[in-house]
Amino acid sequence: MTQPPDYNIIEKAAARIRPYIHRTPVMASHNLNKMVGAEIYFKCENLQKAGAFKTRGACNAVFLIEDTDLEKGVCTHSSGNHAAALARAAALRNTKAYIVMPDNSSKVKIAAVKQYGGEITFCSPNLKSREDTLKKVIEKTGALEIHPYNDYRIIAGQATAAKELIEDVENMDIIMAPVGGGGLLSGTALSAFYYSPKTKVIAAEPAGADDAYRSFYEGKFIPSKNPDTIADGLLTSLGTLTYPIITKYVDEIIRVKEESIVRAMKLIWERMKIIIEPSSAVPLAAILENQSNFKNKRIGIILSGGNVDLDKLPWFTTKY
Amino acid sequence: MTQPPDYNIIEKAAARIRPYIHRTPVMASHNLNKMVGAEIYFKCENLQKAGAFKTRGACNAVFLIEDTDLEKGVCTHSSGNHAAALARAAALRNTKAYIVMPDNSSKVKIAAVKQYGGEITFCSPNLKSREDTLKKVIEKTGALEIHPYNDYRIIAGQATAAKELIEDVENMDIIMAPVGGGGLLSGTALSAFYYSPKTKVIAAEPAGADDAYRSFYEGKFIPSKNPDTIADGLLTSLGTLTYPIITKYVDEIIRVKEESIVRAMKLIWERMKIIIEPSSAVPLAAILENQSNFKNKRIGIILSGGNVDLDKLPWFTTKY
Repeated sequence: MTQPPDYNIIEKAAARIRPYIHRTPVMASHNLNKMVGAEIYFKCENLQKAGAFKTRGACNAVFLIEDTDLEKGVCTHSSGNHAAALARAAALRNTKAYIVMPDNSSKVKIAAVKQYGGEITFCSPNLKSREDTLKKVIEKTGALEIHPYNDYRIIAGQATAAKELIEDVENMDIIMAPVGGGGLLSGTALSAFYYSPKTKVIAAEPAGADDAYRSFYEGKFIPSKNPDTIADGLLTSLGTLTYPIITKYVDEIIRVKEESIVRAMKLIWERMKIIIEPSSAVPLAAILENQSNFKNKRIGIILSGGNVDLDKLPWFTTKY
Repeated sequence: MTQPPDYNIIEKAAARIRPYIHRTPVMASHNLNKMVGAEIYFKCENLQKAGAFKTRGACNAVFLIEDTDLEKGVCTHSSGNHAAALARAAALRNTKAYIVMPDNSSKVKIAAVKQYGGEITFCSPNLKSREDTLKKVIEKTGALEIHPYNDYRIIAGQATAAKELIEDVENMDIIMAPVGGGGLLSGTALSAFYYSPKTKVIAAEPAGADDAYRSFYEGKFIPSKNPDTIADGLLTSLGTLTYPIITKYVDEIIRVKEESIVRAMKLIWERMKIIIEPSSAVPLAAILENQSNFKNKRIGIILSGGNVDLDKLPWFTTKY
């Protein structure tokens, strides 16, 4: 794929991955809506296989590869949900997944990768060590690299979450997604463009990792320097493929405070009785911080994932 | 109603409450099943309106009352989910709900009652004070008492959860529910009898509050003395109406340890990404403690509710 996914590509991705993913439910809370003054529909990718939307992109990429090219397996570096999703997709194709993970990755994420049969190589927790280690893994194994977001196959897979949400909820004024590397946001924006062009696309980003915000509004690609946020899925910078899509198809990016993320996360746990990870709470945090702008709007939010270390919950370990 | 609910009564209850409740989803986890060696289907009453199955019984009881009899409102004593469910049902009928709550009730439960417009009178945390205070409330207001479980209208409402589960999952070997006062268990056993007579009904009870176990196996009604368990919804003793139904229609009662309840609760949070309260975890705890007895069985479990104080999670506050 050399062009951003279009209507046909997204349709094909949806058909390709259908047997291997959940069509996740869309949930709403009357009380939460009353509290916020808007009508919010949550697309529950926290209830997705392997606990995150990443399953969509990983399945689409891995199932696009020919049998003969898959013999040596696939590989990636990831501290998070893409790692488990890729391990699962590889297992479904009866091939190996080699995952390079920083040695400070959460034990929950490590356990998830192992559970799906992924083979882990640990590295130091910085981009250089991740890339160097992955390079060595590729030299040794000949595995195909599947990047977590800077890959049109991945973006097409992630687009299917918003596609389903648009099918289930008519006439949304706004669709929101968090932004880290931009795979989910790119896919969401493309699906909105093709399936619901009147719906505005608003991204939400932690102020402590605001490379997408700065790149978007300053009109040039500015990678993160020392990003710091509780939303551990959003530490990465945009990619060369996601940045142009976001520039073209996203309407607005909102930055949010850490305490709003924790508040939004706890609200969703309390009111919806579902478990989401901090990254998933960032769009609701943006609404809470800017309530008047969202008044009476009909809003779809992609809850990106639910992989949390239950022994380290932010309202116990931080001051928020 | 002077007889336990039969097929027709349960059918009518289901039709009566349908507009006011969620048809809750049935969820399963491939990994959890693999771990346990059984096929478990969870009926998610934690996602029910007001966060618990209690909404079913409360709606059925309140919507059975004639308008003229409802003018002075309804009342109950309850520290928990029945209180919020009754307040909600009363609000739906545009009448008042007077709730007597022990002054040590959790702030989450108090907030839930207030949110639905219930009028709270606090009392000391013992049965005598609860009953005396409720008597005074009735003298003052003339409100109708709706008991949390010892009422056939309530039992018929609770039966609809198992009815839906049986409609959604064919050929279950076993259906399980926790037991406290026995409203949910009675309803579950009656629905199994009428809709899926080949399915065994197994109850699970905390060893620290095992009045149902002892009453069931000793063949006489033995109320709890100083019950103590983390499963705060299961502290009450069986009632005069629930005890005979359970004796007749339940196949087995299993007692479980506190640490198994906490383990099962955390497992469901981790694997299913949903929030359940400790009482909901008791059936899975019974399976974990007796795994070989459940091997390869097809099991339905009613997850009773999801109202938890997120600031007091058992794996932070206890040693389990």
